[in-house]
Amino acid sequence: MIKVDIVGLGNVGTHLRRALSKTADVASVNPRTFDGLRRDCEICFIAVSDSAIDGVAQKISERLASDSILVHTSGSTPISVLENKSRNTGVFYPLQTFSKEVELNYENLPVLIEANNEATENSLRQLAAAAGFKSSAASSEQRKSIHLAAVICCNFVNHLWHLSDDYLKRNNLDFKLLLPLIGETFGKISKVSPRDAQTGPASRHDMKTLEKHLDMLENNEELRTIYKILSDSIMKYYAR
Amino acid sequence: MIKVDIVGLGNVGTHLRRALSKTADVASVNPRTFDGLRRDCEICFIAVSDSAIDGVAQKISERLASDSILVHTSGSTPISVLENKSRNTGVFYPLQTFSKEVELNYENLPVLIEANNEATENSLRQLAAAAGFKSSAASSEQRKSIHLAAVICCNFVNHLWHLSDDYLKRNNLDFKLLLPLIGETFGKISKVSPRDAQTGPASRHDMKTLEKHLDMLENNEELRTIYKILSDSIMKYYAR
Repeated sequence: MIKVDIVGLGNVGTHLRRALSKTADVASVNPRTFDGLRRDCEICFIAVSDSAIDGVAQKISERLASDSILVHTSGSTPISVLENKSRNTGVFYPLQTFSKEVELNYENLPVLIEANNEATENSLRQLAAAAGFKSSAASSEQRKSIHLAAVICCNFVNHLWHLSDDYLKRNNLDFKLLLPLIGETFGKISKVSPRDAQTGPASRHDMKTLEKHLDMLENNEELRTIYKILSDSIMKYYAR
Repeated sequence: MIKVDIVGLGNVGTHLRRALSKTADVASVNPRTFDGLRRDCEICFIAVSDSAIDGVAQKISERLASDSILVHTSGSTPISVLENKSRNTGVFYPLQTFSKEVELNYENLPVLIEANNEATENSLRQLAAAAGFKSSAASSEQRKSIHLAAVICCNFVNHLWHLSDDYLKRNNLDFKLLLPLIGETFGKISKVSPRDAQTGPASRHDMKTLEKHLDMLENNEELRTIYKILSDSIMKYYAR
């Protein structure tokens, strides 16, 4: 079994340990004392906060065999932070939000992989495959783009739900009423592209409904502005 | 068993028939010929396109017993369209997108109910309960608000996914990578309010990341504007 050390006891470290323990000989390493770090481990994961990666990598590099693979798990940190800290370096970025308390199914978990040489990339992709993950190669630049897209697809989307919740409360209606409809909206994009899944008044250029909605929002400047900008944007993509 | 006639053979009519047939004696009625309409049915549903409701209701009123309940199923049409067409009128609006071909679990389907008198409202809510739906009372005004919120929660959300898909394509990345993360974002709001579920750079007032992202979008004016407005809006709701 491949020897894998995971430095960091947080959300990512905990989930990585669980996910890899079936296919690898995994050891957890305290990122302050480095107790338990195995000089001869084949892959050493650094799963600490972004700002701590540089310092932790430095300390590990003094304790690791020269051919061990040194890897971090951060989406927004370039691979270059590991430069000169090992001969073989990489990034192994799981695209999921982890909470220690929430169990996850790791089957097909998307993982973005980058490495400073081909042999290292192959080792990381093999490990991902053995764990049942779905790995893709992505450069540091691409990981930055994915992070930006995740903000739009998750944080902004959640904010639209938040604004709707507030709006419905003011009309004595319960946001939970919309959950089945929202669930179906999400369900659709696993089958067709979001472009093909679109429905609603803006995609039909139904100006009567759009104007009625803008009138209904005349006392809610914030939501009115967002309604207008997103409707205008939708209309650009669909023929009249 | 209560006699229920459903006028209309489209998506809503088809699903209503399937959902009610366990708890009611249901007949489907052709909305052009009115073949099969039973004069003594207790509840008559009009499940036709919004613009056809008025005309169909008129024709039905000539064929229905005076104490039958006449109901339409439209979100954005007021109950007043049925005025003078029966003594007992109502709205029975299922909050879900229906496609004839897609089977649905009707358990807990949210239905918004309105009626012109209490006895009619009770009958409609009893029917909904018998079918396993989750009914709430909502005025015509409130149904309009729910429709507006649905546009924001579903159409606008889908558009953000569409813009992200386009953005990722330009960076040779696959939108599907984000599906598990988006699924988890949706999963969260069944447990906590969207307000409490929010994460990401704007909610943390992480100006460094916001500026980095705006820089990355400098050649994409459309997405840059949306990024700025939604981030500014998020920041207003979360303390620094």
